[in-house]
Amino acid sequence: MPAPSPTFEGDFIVPETPFRLSNGEALPEVRLRYALYGELNEARDNAVLVCHALTGSARVADWWGDLFREKDGAFDLERQCVIGVNVVGSCYGSTGPGSVNPETGKRYGGSFPVVTFRDVVRAQQALVESLGIRRLAAVVGGSIGGMQAMQWAVDFPEMVRACVSIGAAPLSAMGLALNHLQRQAIMNDPAWRGGDYESDAQPVAGLALARGIAMCSYKSAELFEERFARSPNRSGENPGRSLGERFDVAGYLDHQGEVFIKRFEANSYLALSKAMDLFDLGQDYYSEHEALSRITARTQLVGISSDWLFPAADVRALAERMRAAGAPVQYSEIETAHGHDGFLAEPDRVVSVIRTALATGRAACGD
Amino acid sequence: MPAPSPTFEGDFIVPETPFRLSNGEALPEVRLRYALYGELNEARDNAVLVCHALTGSARVADWWGDLFREKDGAFDLERQCVIGVNVVGSCYGSTGPGSVNPETGKRYGGSFPVVTFRDVVRAQQALVESLGIRRLAAVVGGSIGGMQAMQWAVDFPEMVRACVSIGAAPLSAMGLALNHLQRQAIMNDPAWRGGDYESDAQPVAGLALARGIAMCSYKSAELFEERFARSPNRSGENPGRSLGERFDVAGYLDHQGEVFIKRFEANSYLALSKAMDLFDLGQDYYSEHEALSRITARTQLVGISSDWLFPAADVRALAERMRAAGAPVQYSEIETAHGHDGFLAEPDRVVSVIRTALATGRAACGD
Repeated sequence: MPAPSPTFEGDFIVPETPFRLSNGEALPEVRLRYALYGELNEARDNAVLVCHALTGSARVADWWGDLFREKDGAFDLERQCVIGVNVVGSCYGSTGPGSVNPETGKRYGGSFPVVTFRDVVRAQQALVESLGIRRLAAVVGGSIGGMQAMQWAVDFPEMVRACVSIGAAPLSAMGLALNHLQRQAIMNDPAWRGGDYESDAQPVAGLALARGIAMCSYKSAELFEERFARSPNRSGENPGRSLGERFDVAGYLDHQGEVFIKRFEANSYLALSKAMDLFDLGQDYYSEHEALSRITARTQLVGISSDWLFPAADVRALAERMRAAGAPVQYSEIETAHGHDGFLAEPDRVVSVIRTALATGRAACGD
Repeated sequence: MPAPSPTFEGDFIVPETPFRLSNGEALPEVRLRYALYGELNEARDNAVLVCHALTGSARVADWWGDLFREKDGAFDLERQCVIGVNVVGSCYGSTGPGSVNPETGKRYGGSFPVVTFRDVVRAQQALVESLGIRRLAAVVGGSIGGMQAMQWAVDFPEMVRACVSIGAAPLSAMGLALNHLQRQAIMNDPAWRGGDYESDAQPVAGLALARGIAMCSYKSAELFEERFARSPNRSGENPGRSLGERFDVAGYLDHQGEVFIKRFEANSYLALSKAMDLFDLGQDYYSEHEALSRITARTQLVGISSDWLFPAADVRALAERMRAAGAPVQYSEIETAHGHDGFLAEPDRVVSVIRTALATGRAACGD
């Protein structure tokens, strides 16, 4: 079954210009690429916002197609309207480092400011409001999509009926370390040029290496062992012969890098990896506790058993802090060997979580 | 207490010239830098060979000083003679990529062949033999030092009375992946020049990044969290302000990289990381089982509970395969949050393991 096409896809200019950012800087203009699947109903209370992960786009069905399966998917497009919004900083249509700065007429490049998911979500809120939606039936996401979902529940509690966040929590020191090394890989590449590379000459070697490091953190040792073990690269290399000949897992990582550099931009990678680092629901509140106490959405936090980028224990601990702050939160766990990527690799589990959240959200509101 | 100085430090030229390597290539000459602590007794049966890890040297007391503590150390230099040998491929005195190839009069650089620990140990055996030692009281090592210790027990069973290997097993797919990415970091650096950089212009950015990736695999997430959590870099940076400002763990990794590039060489890093990849006791035997069945040394394999480069489960599984092959092996585990580095960070545990192995080895021989 092919992924459904959006019923609408277009751009939205956030009315707030310049758009203030958390760190005190501003963007002269924020454009958001968004996509709708299905139709908003008259009451405009059937919208589900799906927030994407690091390298995703507004076209939710392109990367999370299983959620749109007709019989056993998470959404019923006869009843619901799914909204995808590309995050600020990305390279899939929204304002990002590759966009032209209207004030200079040149691409932002290395001058693109640090953005946080608080900024990202505030821009999304302007879009949602402009669509006449007073309350989202749910905000859903995995990884940094989950960060956005939780940020929505904290910053705009009156606008979120249910919140589902999978495999997301503030990064631990190990996660911060791995992100830092990925950014170093890009910034080490002379082609990066402080971020001011030409659009057809990005730092591909650095970006591919960053992707390789990330892939290790998205998968689990168990999965790698099952898939690759100590096999030589399937292309017929002999790792013992020369420095460059590889084991299979190395060929896999290199291949992932080669594919990635064709579809992603190094500066966007830096911007979003930085935003991931900075995710902290207490940001701009008196404390994390105060922030979490604002949550009124039925919130479902989901840990992934083999995730070592966002360990399930960290997700569970965040759920416990939410509960301690009085938020209506539940915690559950996906048992899988797929690691962090479990939110993509275990669609049946995700479908079930989202269906339950949508039903519970409705029940709680007496719909 | 300062680390003891070697009673002797010098070079040994392996008589086999050219020196054949596992992959069919050869080195025109192999020079080994070695160090002795204490004195060989008349019977020459009091020697303990200590094999070093990736970035170590023949000067064992410089990097494993705790083992030489006078009262509660592992060795009694009045009775034992500790031998350290720098591995082939390293940059601490033995023949490596930075050495001059006597056939060309130029440094090997990128032309240095792939070496395995089977090659490394065969060269060491020539040295040990030249010292008049017919049997080592013990061969001991952690990480790739442990690989060498086990290789000794397999290749020269009659020469090893006791073998202690800590935190070592054939690398799993995840370990191979992490090593590959570290080598990529170096090889991505234009200063690497295919290995043919000048000795004063090595690829420092790539080498520092490789070290950063390695540090993540040497430590544990738990330890990083305890030490760094989400604190901003102690130099006073604000990670939210700009792309380059760091969290504390990132500052730590960068610092480790800066220190490392002053003391290690990129091509040696590539050579030894490759040797680590290739470690496979079955190499050149009919099967791993056949190789393991050769072991007669009292062998102690030690897993490190929080090691994710060489998971304790992998070390235990190797011990089980040894036992199944009839080798006199025991398995024990060091409980620590220090990760792979536990073999350096938990000296008391290591001292106890080595003392027991030395005593057991003696008892088994009726000494």
